[in-house]
Amino acid sequence: MKNNERGIVPRKIKGFRDINPELNQLRWKIITKASQVYKKYGYQQWDSPTLEYADNLGKYMPDKDTIDQGVYSFRNPELEPVLKKNGKELRDSSNKVVMENHHLAMRYDLTAPLARMYSESLWTRFLQKNLTETNIPLFRRFQFGQVFRYETKLDPGRFREFWQLDFDTIGTTDVAADAETCMILSDAMEAIGLKRGSYIVNVNNRKILKGFLESLGVNELKIASDNGSEITSILQGEELEQAILRIIDKADKIEIRGVLQELGKGRTDTSGAKIIGLKLDKSIISEIENYLSAFENIPTREKVLQKLGNLGIDNQTFKEGLEELKKIDAILSKIRYKDDRVTFTPTLVRGMAYYTGPIFEVNSLQTYTDRKGNKRQVGAICGGGRYDGLIENFLGIKASATGASIGIDRLAELLQLTQQTDDLEDGPVFIVLFDEHLMPEYQQIAHELREAGIDTEIYYGLQKGLKKQLAYADKKNCPFAILIGEDEAKAGIATVKNLKLGKDKTMQKIKDKNEWRAKVQAQIKRENLVQYFLDAQK
Amino acid sequence: MKNNERGIVPRKIKGFRDINPELNQLRWKIITKASQVYKKYGYQQWDSPTLEYADNLGKYMPDKDTIDQGVYSFRNPELEPVLKKNGKELRDSSNKVVMENHHLAMRYDLTAPLARMYSESLWTRFLQKNLTETNIPLFRRFQFGQVFRYETKLDPGRFREFWQLDFDTIGTTDVAADAETCMILSDAMEAIGLKRGSYIVNVNNRKILKGFLESLGVNELKIASDNGSEITSILQGEELEQAILRIIDKADKIEIRGVLQELGKGRTDTSGAKIIGLKLDKSIISEIENYLSAFENIPTREKVLQKLGNLGIDNQTFKEGLEELKKIDAILSKIRYKDDRVTFTPTLVRGMAYYTGPIFEVNSLQTYTDRKGNKRQVGAICGGGRYDGLIENFLGIKASATGASIGIDRLAELLQLTQQTDDLEDGPVFIVLFDEHLMPEYQQIAHELREAGIDTEIYYGLQKGLKKQLAYADKKNCPFAILIGEDEAKAGIATVKNLKLGKDKTMQKIKDKNEWRAKVQAQIKRENLVQYFLDAQK
Repeated sequence: MKNNERGIVPRKIKGFRDINPELNQLRWKIITKASQVYKKYGYQQWDSPTLEYADNLGKYMPDKDTIDQGVYSFRNPELEPVLKKNGKELRDSSNKVVMENHHLAMRYDLTAPLARMYSESLWTRFLQKNLTETNIPLFRRFQFGQVFRYETKLDPGRFREFWQLDFDTIGTTDVAADAETCMILSDAMEAIGLKRGSYIVNVNNRKILKGFLESLGVNELKIASDNGSEITSILQGEELEQAILRIIDKADKIEIRGVLQELGKGRTDTSGAKIIGLKLDKSIISEIENYLSAFENIPTREKVLQKLGNLGIDNQTFKEGLEELKKIDAILSKIRYKDDRVTFTPTLVRGMAYYTGPIFEVNSLQTYTDRKGNKRQVGAICGGGRYDGLIENFLGIKASATGASIGIDRLAELLQLTQQTDDLEDGPVFIVLFDEHLMPEYQQIAHELREAGIDTEIYYGLQKGLKKQLAYADKKNCPFAILIGEDEAKAGIATVKNLKLGKDKTMQKIKDKNEWRAKVQAQIKRENLVQYFLDAQK
Repeated sequence: MKNNERGIVPRKIKGFRDINPELNQLRWKIITKASQVYKKYGYQQWDSPTLEYADNLGKYMPDKDTIDQGVYSFRNPELEPVLKKNGKELRDSSNKVVMENHHLAMRYDLTAPLARMYSESLWTRFLQKNLTETNIPLFRRFQFGQVFRYETKLDPGRFREFWQLDFDTIGTTDVAADAETCMILSDAMEAIGLKRGSYIVNVNNRKILKGFLESLGVNELKIASDNGSEITSILQGEELEQAILRIIDKADKIEIRGVLQELGKGRTDTSGAKIIGLKLDKSIISEIENYLSAFENIPTREKVLQKLGNLGIDNQTFKEGLEELKKIDAILSKIRYKDDRVTFTPTLVRGMAYYTGPIFEVNSLQTYTDRKGNKRQVGAICGGGRYDGLIENFLGIKASATGASIGIDRLAELLQLTQQTDDLEDGPVFIVLFDEHLMPEYQQIAHELREAGIDTEIYYGLQKGLKKQLAYADKKNCPFAILIGEDEAKAGIATVKNLKLGKDKTMQKIKDKNEWRAKVQAQIKRENLVQYFLDAQK
């Protein structure tokens, strides 16, 4: 390595980014508004660290030698004892404590750290064998923060560091908590500023999907090699279910036709790649097709429930799922969360294999026009569901939990793409540095404005030309500039330039310099200056 | 390694912690209030990533083979080209691009990433050789977030992940910007809730200290081994200056007596460890002693300036420093930031070697009583100053900049230790789950309360006993519990328990059960329930 040729080039790691003031305003508006909604329902903010032991995040297991992919991980620089299942130090044959630089990982979501936090609080009771599925405590928290994914293939608009805003309830089997999750998601979207009708909370239940697949009677599937000469794998139970659900989940992208092809003989995608099909029986595929098309454009939860009831599926799983959806509907209807806010979507899958009951997804219904002029939608902006494997790695028992997560960056992108950024704050009022000797006077004016609640900045830069100063103010989106030179100071007046108006398109039509100036510029008496800006804010 | 014996024990990495709702409230109060102050002065929020290339943080230099200590760093899992000083890819003798897994590091402060961000925006101009110390642009931003330090020795109450809240102005030589830094620090402390007189912004100027040391005429110092037989090192210029300043900086901890000993023969600390002294001449030590004691308890900035003027030091550095302090005082006095908010402290050093002009430190003047009953102070809660080496690593020129940082965790600790947590929010109003069949009614009540702006939680836990439910509510600091069973529902009333009053000490004196109940419990008509809680909030 020729170290003397190396340079230090200022740049960000691929997939990481700087956040400018506009995007920050959107980010913090989303966080603040949604957090207030979470609090309104009794959730409290608990934070976990950014860095955790990799095994605590489920990314390094005692029976493995390597760490799971997709995370940023490294060895702890500190040497520490290896622990046994009972929390005591592991010792070698000569009774010496086994030491190691443990694997650490940057958190990849906010759920795995929640599992660690909750389990840690129950560790003593676990060691005392005083913990069962029915006596675990209720815990409800929200948390927001950055998470990190080492994605080797990075799609455009995706990042390796992004923000999530989660709320979860651990230790409940009551589907009232799931109904509440729907209310919270709807309330949060509206608190953030999405109009009713511009978003929808989609709800399904994994038990409905599971029960439907069960009713098809497919118990085992032999996957053959492409020419059919060899059986390469056999899918059963959960694995089979997941394989089918994964394909149904793609309906958004590849449409029902593509789904049916993948369930059958397979298909060739737009890039020319061959996707091997599951080769299910035609009769089965046809039943799935009927199911998928049955629930298109059904206007009310009530009608969806009727239709599900009329399918004639009578296995326990399906019936449980339907019962739960009915309970959720009863609560939502009682307090008038109607079909324009929360809808039932029996074809919704939500990728994650760990969901076990009701699942949720919020979609934006707004379209925007992309650079090529095509109408597009942003897709899912929140997701969640009921899961019960949360603390199993630590405590060996299942804990029923439910919750959801707002994708902060996706939502901020939506607000930008659909131009819902009207309420972004202006920059500060800008005081031009005309004359060094007037600095105490500039400070006095700035002080008075700030006391009156008006953000104000004085220029301190090295390049003192008026053009440079105003270009700086424009870049910061300053609404006004105050210009005071020696003459103005003596006369007790200030020239105020309306920078915002100056950028207005209608203003650019005015060709006469004096007319233009009369519109965007005003002479204000020094003693009226604060009042002038207070009036302008109204 | 006996992997089958390993366990997954839920725990945090040493030096990392979970943040509970109370501490989170304090943290976000500090961030919100102080950010509003920063904005009021025209600073805008720019965020940088949590993870950066280690060389971009100054932690890995082209001429070194190892990474600097004190940070969490690891190799990028992604293979990337090595870059030359001109930003182009480095190629080997056979013209192949040299690839490497670059060193990454978790940010250890918010200033190094600022340097990267600012330099990156100027990179094109740098390559065009169109960048000088006098034409760099003005840039002002604030940022808050977690930073990470791998401290091998972790003092109690210190953490490896902690939060900072920085504001900086790059590209200004105007000390008006430093005066502004003082105002911001003072405004921020008061916005957070510190009373005037309970904190003080201390200001000094490195040029004052530098000029004073220059006036002593010590140009070189030979450091001898302890028995004096050997010269182990020779200190000159900056190094000598830093060695003396480092000792003066300890005055808080070891008092002036300790400082004088370390400047002279050395001393033995409380643990019995020997600290080798600088062995300066007695006359020099005596001059330093005079300087240090001259500025104890001087009540006003004006008097400090007089005294500094009367020292008779006439080198350029000292005079510049004094002139700058005078300008700062002029601005602060003009807008009435008096001596009870900002004071001049000519003995203030602020450890960091990179400061070059005015320096700032905010100290809390409040005492608290520690566990052993001793009166204690928290120490510095903010620090900052003027520095100019910021972008030198990247762009090869100096950029004069000034700014400061609020230690969010230290300040939150102060608020807790001095019991300034009165304005912490209560938990939600708590609805006891008495009867599963009444769930829609509980939901209706919760909905009405939330619509009226009252945080409300319904219990969903598995353990349904009233005691368990109320214990849960107590833990969450819920002010009230609503109890509605079948009888109450029929009668159209609700029993409301005042949980906060129930915990009150004066209540515990009441022995009579009925009397006690009459005080903490009330029967409220269903239709008056919302109004009851609205009244209770006042």
